[in-house]
Amino acid sequence: MSSVIQVTLPHTSYNIVIDPNSLGTIGRYLDSLQLGQKVMVISNPEIFNYYGKTVINSLKKTGFEVFSHLIPPGETYKTLDSISQVYDVALKYRLERSSTLLALGGGVIGDMTGFAAATWLRGINFVQVPTSLLAMVDASIGGKTGVNHPQGKNLIGAFYQPRLVFIDPMVLKTLPVREFRAGMAEVIKYGVIWNQDLFNQLEAQKNLDSLDNINLEILQEIIKKSCQAKVDVVNQDEKEAGLRAILNYGHTIGHAIESLTGYSQINHGEAVAIGMVAAGKIAVKSGMWTKEMSQRQDDLIKKAALPESIDKSLKSQKIIETLQLDKKVKAGKVRFILPTNIGKVDIKEEIPSEVINTVLEEMKRT
Amino acid sequence: MSSVIQVTLPHTSYNIVIDPNSLGTIGRYLDSLQLGQKVMVISNPEIFNYYGKTVINSLKKTGFEVFSHLIPPGETYKTLDSISQVYDVALKYRLERSSTLLALGGGVIGDMTGFAAATWLRGINFVQVPTSLLAMVDASIGGKTGVNHPQGKNLIGAFYQPRLVFIDPMVLKTLPVREFRAGMAEVIKYGVIWNQDLFNQLEAQKNLDSLDNINLEILQEIIKKSCQAKVDVVNQDEKEAGLRAILNYGHTIGHAIESLTGYSQINHGEAVAIGMVAAGKIAVKSGMWTKEMSQRQDDLIKKAALPESIDKSLKSQKIIETLQLDKKVKAGKVRFILPTNIGKVDIKEEIPSEVINTVLEEMKRT
Repeated sequence: MSSVIQVTLPHTSYNIVIDPNSLGTIGRYLDSLQLGQKVMVISNPEIFNYYGKTVINSLKKTGFEVFSHLIPPGETYKTLDSISQVYDVALKYRLERSSTLLALGGGVIGDMTGFAAATWLRGINFVQVPTSLLAMVDASIGGKTGVNHPQGKNLIGAFYQPRLVFIDPMVLKTLPVREFRAGMAEVIKYGVIWNQDLFNQLEAQKNLDSLDNINLEILQEIIKKSCQAKVDVVNQDEKEAGLRAILNYGHTIGHAIESLTGYSQINHGEAVAIGMVAAGKIAVKSGMWTKEMSQRQDDLIKKAALPESIDKSLKSQKIIETLQLDKKVKAGKVRFILPTNIGKVDIKEEIPSEVINTVLEEMKRT
Repeated sequence: MSSVIQVTLPHTSYNIVIDPNSLGTIGRYLDSLQLGQKVMVISNPEIFNYYGKTVINSLKKTGFEVFSHLIPPGETYKTLDSISQVYDVALKYRLERSSTLLALGGGVIGDMTGFAAATWLRGINFVQVPTSLLAMVDASIGGKTGVNHPQGKNLIGAFYQPRLVFIDPMVLKTLPVREFRAGMAEVIKYGVIWNQDLFNQLEAQKNLDSLDNINLEILQEIIKKSCQAKVDVVNQDEKEAGLRAILNYGHTIGHAIESLTGYSQINHGEAVAIGMVAAGKIAVKSGMWTKEMSQRQDDLIKKAALPESIDKSLKSQKIIETLQLDKKVKAGKVRFILPTNIGKVDIKEEIPSEVINTVLEEMKRT
């Protein structure tokens, strides 16, 4: 059974389809969109090896003319140069305004494909087929596309909406378990910031640490609720004027830790998990959240086998300094997204450094 | 006295201000837009030498923090690489979401600055200060931004609207006369395709061949009516679905001639002038337009000292073949925009090659 979320924006609308075991029928979904004949699949070699043939065969069977272009995996290739190569291939295959770029991959592939689609011939069709849990519930929704500048992540990009987001949760079976857990961190985030039902549903699960330990129907529901949460927030704030900031729950300290550890030891989801634990504790210390709720959040993080503590080699003072350098910081004041309930957060402008420091020290791994 | 055209689109709105002798007060206009403090002026060395100081001083006096970046003149530099350099400078000066890129120059500078603004931090503010007549009445309006691909013009780009288009017609005094005339070709085009009043006003002028021969108030009106014509058409068709095609009047054969002569001997406006003469004759032969109206158009083109004939070294058959290769051609059928009155055109899907050939042969310079 497929679930559909309709995303309606002032100038466009599209569907997020969640349909387990249906990757082989994706052509049917594209067929209903009245796209032009040409589709170019952008992927990375590993993912393409798993799912490329299935997607291409389905598209061909539906009558599309299909091309493909592979980009090596990882942030290192998330560059303007990779986009330039997509342009060359788009020219080679004579893609037209009505043609489609289809992103088959995780967040990096989605961001790059979206940016290429946004900027080739001033915008051609874009379809997202996320293959990581993180991309399904986060990166593929909201229209953020782009690449890195040598000196900063995602500095080059555009807001550009897809014509379709197509999610087959079964592709997660080839996702490394650590990446599955990283996606689960964002799922837990939606439970804390937006949807109490989702939170309760996660609590009702025995395990959240791998695909094998979650019932497929439950997984589909969890993905749907997560997507819906992001859609709700983004719909109210497409261009990041205000509300969208709550999606950064757990990301403030998370980003600082990612940056200090060079984006290598700890992945994004793990950093967010640590950041949520910290934010929860800060909220408790600020009298905004109960200790019991904070504990319930931390229990979910544990159930997803995500980290809750900070390596003691990371100096708290260093983390606080990094926070103050963040681009989201205004005039040195660190803004935190803090929970006030299960499913509800508030934006708190000034948290004293001493409170942050105390919490970080409490979280040091012993 | 300044004239203002309000452009209202579904998702944004902005003003086109035409204000002679007011470049030195541009800061005031930006001040009312609630932009962030940082403005980066993008220009080319020659234009910056003429007007850079005036613009920068006015912006500084209004309280902006101003930076500048120069790009060498010409299509050769309209590349992704030039944009990449703008990104580097944007990073160096730490431009923020609320910062502004201001294009001070002709169409090339405007297109590039707009694309950089569209894609830095997923979109920052963009202000157009066109310094050529062509950019004032055409390129600066409609939201088309972009750069060339080595194998094709404007293949990389985005639709992105400015926050303000600021036109001081007096900057045209430093524009080479041949470029002034090229802009006048587009002005005449608006008279033919959209605005009979404008056409009549042009007919009432003794000369249209240089700034010195036109009264400043009349020039302001002509620019205003031309901008309004483009705004009217684009407003009804922002993303080029249908009506916008009429702006290509004169461009079908014009582009073929530009392409065959290597974009060097003949400039864009001159090619459009020749294209309009040809389209007029085709319309007459197709029984859509009167010979008298066609002659009135050709008289305006002559008055602007624009070319009306085709060099006999250009083979008509070659032009027709080039038409059939154009990206706007569907299934080998050449679509023409043809006049049906003064101020009115129609789209004609299939014009027999023999008719085109006869007209081209008639236009051969003897």
